[in-house]
Amino acid sequence: MDSSNNWRERLYVMIFQSDTPAGRRFDGILLVIILASLVIVMLDSIDSIHRNYADVLAYIEWGFTAIFLGEYILRLYCSPKPLRYAFSFYGLVDLLAIVPGILALYYSDAQYLLIIRIIRMLRIFRVLKLSPYLKQANYLMSALRGSKQKIVVFLVSVCTLVTVFGTLMYVIEGPEHGFTSIPKGIYWAIVTLTTVGFGDIVPKTPLGQVISSLVMITGYSIIAVPTGIFTAELANAMRGEQLQHDCPGCQKKTHEQSAAFCSRCGSQLFKKVE
Amino acid sequence: MDSSNNWRERLYVMIFQSDTPAGRRFDGILLVIILASLVIVMLDSIDSIHRNYADVLAYIEWGFTAIFLGEYILRLYCSPKPLRYAFSFYGLVDLLAIVPGILALYYSDAQYLLIIRIIRMLRIFRVLKLSPYLKQANYLMSALRGSKQKIVVFLVSVCTLVTVFGTLMYVIEGPEHGFTSIPKGIYWAIVTLTTVGFGDIVPKTPLGQVISSLVMITGYSIIAVPTGIFTAELANAMRGEQLQHDCPGCQKKTHEQSAAFCSRCGSQLFKKVE
Amino acid sequence: MDSSNNWRERLYVMIFQSDTPAGRRFDGILLVIILASLVIVMLDSIDSIHRNYADVLAYIEWGFTAIFLGEYILRLYCSPKPLRYAFSFYGLVDLLAIVPGILALYYSDAQYLLIIRIIRMLRIFRVLKLSPYLKQANYLMSALRGSKQKIVVFLVSVCTLVTVFGTLMYVIEGPEHGFTSIPKGIYWAIVTLTTVGFGDIVPKTPLGQVISSLVMITGYSIIAVPTGIFTAELANAMRGEQLQHDCPGCQKKTHEQSAAFCSRCGSQLFKKVE
Amino acid sequence: MDSSNNWRERLYVMIFQSDTPAGRRFDGILLVIILASLVIVMLDSIDSIHRNYADVLAYIEWGFTAIFLGEYILRLYCSPKPLRYAFSFYGLVDLLAIVPGILALYYSDAQYLLIIRIIRMLRIFRVLKLSPYLKQANYLMSALRGSKQKIVVFLVSVCTLVTVFGTLMYVIEGPEHGFTSIPKGIYWAIVTLTTVGFGDIVPKTPLGQVISSLVMITGYSIIAVPTGIFTAELANAMRGEQLQHDCPGCQKKTHEQSAAFCSRCGSQLFKKVE
Repeated sequence: MDSSNNWRERLYVMIFQSDTPAGRRFDGILLVIILASLVIVMLDSIDSIHRNYADVLAYIEWGFTAIFLGEYILRLYCSPKPLRYAFSFYGLVDLLAIVPGILALYYSDAQYLLIIRIIRMLRIFRVLKLSPYLKQANYLMSALRGSKQKIVVFLVSVCTLVTVFGTLMYVIEGPEHGFTSIPKGIYWAIVTLTTVGFGDIVPKTPLGQVISSLVMITGYSIIAVPTGIFTAELANAMRGEQLQHDCPGCQKKTHEQSAAFCSRCGSQLFKKVE
Repeated sequence: MDSSNNWRERLYVMIFQSDTPAGRRFDGILLVIILASLVIVMLDSIDSIHRNYADVLAYIEWGFTAIFLGEYILRLYCSPKPLRYAFSFYGLVDLLAIVPGILALYYSDAQYLLIIRIIRMLRIFRVLKLSPYLKQANYLMSALRGSKQKIVVFLVSVCTLVTVFGTLMYVIEGPEHGFTSIPKGIYWAIVTLTTVGFGDIVPKTPLGQVISSLVMITGYSIIAVPTGIFTAELANAMRGEQLQHDCPGCQKKTHEQSAAFCSRCGSQLFKKVE
Repeated sequence: MDSSNNWRERLYVMIFQSDTPAGRRFDGILLVIILASLVIVMLDSIDSIHRNYADVLAYIEWGFTAIFLGEYILRLYCSPKPLRYAFSFYGLVDLLAIVPGILALYYSDAQYLLIIRIIRMLRIFRVLKLSPYLKQANYLMSALRGSKQKIVVFLVSVCTLVTVFGTLMYVIEGPEHGFTSIPKGIYWAIVTLTTVGFGDIVPKTPLGQVISSLVMITGYSIIAVPTGIFTAELANAMRGEQLQHDCPGCQKKTHEQSAAFCSRCGSQLFKKVE
Repeated sequence: MDSSNNWRERLYVMIFQSDTPAGRRFDGILLVIILASLVIVMLDSIDSIHRNYADVLAYIEWGFTAIFLGEYILRLYCSPKPLRYAFSFYGLVDLLAIVPGILALYYSDAQYLLIIRIIRMLRIFRVLKLSPYLKQANYLMSALRGSKQKIVVFLVSVCTLVTVFGTLMYVIEGPEHGFTSIPKGIYWAIVTLTTVGFGDIVPKTPLGQVISSLVMITGYSIIAVPTGIFTAELANAMRGEQLQHDCPGCQKKTHEQSAAFCSRCGSQLFKKVE
């Protein structure tokens, strides 16, 4: 019993943690398997491959599903609090990586193909297991969080702009030039304002082209706004903003970066060392 | 009389202000109605929906117009200075949200359809009621205002560039490759410089492609200019929440918000007035 | 004689300078005429207008040419050093604004139309008279000049990249997919790297699409480089970099922005004012 | 013997170094030849030129190969450590610039044309000889290196995004609208997210256009991330030409390049060693 517990604990360290060589090796192998299963999904979506190797690929996919199922059971088994794991974000993602594969076993009829395609797509969530690698992203995330409010304002302005411009273009160009409805006009406005410019819908009338020019120059200019927000926020985060030092006179704790005297009581903050 | 005045005042607080629960609820409901009316306008513009549900949608639109009319009258009624409201920016926008709906009642003949479409477009102004949400945008606006002059210079340079390049391309490529006139050439230059690139007009001659490459690299590079201007300005604005006061000792110009002494030379910033 | 000189001088002030009301009015009117002549050139390039109003437009153009010729002679007449003006940048631009109009008088045969189009294009240089407005651009120009070297390095890297990628795509895709030559491949690479994306030439082979993805992500990422260079340079220019103050101990003239003590001799830079 | 050594040494200085007039002249001429050989390769790829001048161009190419071969032998001859040169980066690039030309002599049969095209492409590596010009790029490179980790995180997020969006679009739009497989969907997602927008594959269904709009706005917004990272890093690098030393009095970490005393507390930074 004791040795079993011991074994479970060692398994837990290997599977859940990545600071032992065994843990790192386990994570590495798992990642390769996830990537391989992703590649199989992608290959299966290519028509010429699907026609010739559909069976083989299906078997391989079932194999991967079995492996992930085994891994999930192992995780449940060795976890000290299985329920807590099962309902954690990673636990749910692990489950989502298995379910579609099992469902595909039962509903493989031609008429359900469409549904299976959607289920299959869920398999992409396996890639989210890559998220441990994203841990170093915290720094960027905090800069993004700092500028969240400004970004919302920016996105609302962009939405207003594309709605106004999309309606305007629908009225000016009309269905005969591809602007078949206001939502289509808004879609066009987004394509244009973000400087993507597919070219599937293009203005044909002179007035439409003038408005388009306006949209494009606007889009070209206001890209400066999210960039400016994020850059200023990141530069702020990277610069240590304030000097931490207790003032000998009044105990004020934070001062301007380069303060020599306390701005509250005028005391010299640092003694000259001779 | 007194109680009527009292009621009017409470209505005023509810409708015009948003710092009471009733006021917030009123604004929230109004916003939902505005959004719903917008969605109806958009749905009506989709051909397949218009053909089947034109009548229903028209009734709903009239309903919305009635609601907005009622709201407008209420605003006029409870406002202490009705004329001032009527001619304020918001008053005019509120009016513009109603007029097209009423006009649509009288002129629904087939031949006026085109005009009605333009009037209908005005209904989009209702969305501008979202502007209270944009109040937090003041910060960004001040940064934009600070960089206005530089942005005008930038836009003028861009206009000069597209005019020169547009004419050049008209001369080089000519009508047989889609550059049917100088304005069309300028339109192409804007599409290209802003990196939108619809692809409806593309250079065919080698020399035209060389000039195009020049335009594209220019556009790709000078995007740095508005971005740089805005970022520097915003960083300034974010740093600039500072006390502006010349230190009597060292002429240091900016200080911590609540500074009493200069952090560089320790001088008292302000004389005590006895 | 004296009064004639006086008159010439007043004319000089009005025409060449813009700090008197008369001078400002003259410049304003000139600008409107230049713009009008530009509009005429543009209108004439539109086929439907040219067919109906070619004669009228030609007369108007000759009128503008006459006005600009008169202006040029006046400038030469009232200038104290006519030759110096004639060979200055503005003098040459003024001349270039007239010459094509006069040439168009003699060579209006159908077979020379193509040549005239090129001459006509030169008339666009009149717009460069707008350049006084660009004077406020000095600030931006100095930031651009400061980052010139880095921008050259950036442009050279971009050129190397597009050459390598263009050749690679020519080899992979080949003439059957529109990549008819290496220069065409390079043109495509520029279109793609600058995120313009006309779509006139697109990769068809899987390998070509992989390389394209690489080019696109590269182009999407390295846009950060010119932006970063310019922003950092502009932020630097806008921040006064150094403190100008003579050290009482060693006469060192410039110090760190927030220095309280001289970094060379340790003297306190500013006396505390009590 | 001695004079031969002397001659070899002078040759070495001329060929390998560029701080003598002869060395600069040699490098300049070499650069022009490299550029000319590049132009020849490009011209040869243009079909109309190839058909008429294939022989002449082939001779010229052989000539260039001979020149580069001669240069390579000279470099080996005058280098004090020939092997070290041969296996250095530049030595290998020099060799790669010759080999394809020699291979082209033997395999010029029609059926090997395809292979020769790939070999010919290697000739582009000659352009990498331009790299000495890139030496001033070190500054930019260090900023890039400083932000490497953040850029990797950014690229990984972009890859995740395009995989998810590409699969989603494959499921929604399907093969009938050009999304023939998941890799194709990912290719489309990259084209769209990077705001390139070729327009060869475009969403046709309403839901697909909604997802597209999301991808475009995402791509339009997150361009701010690499720009922000690089700008903040570069601004840091430009500010960072500072003396790194902890002040004994106040722990201030960075000082003016030549500081002897701390500018905040006046303490002597370094102890005099007697």
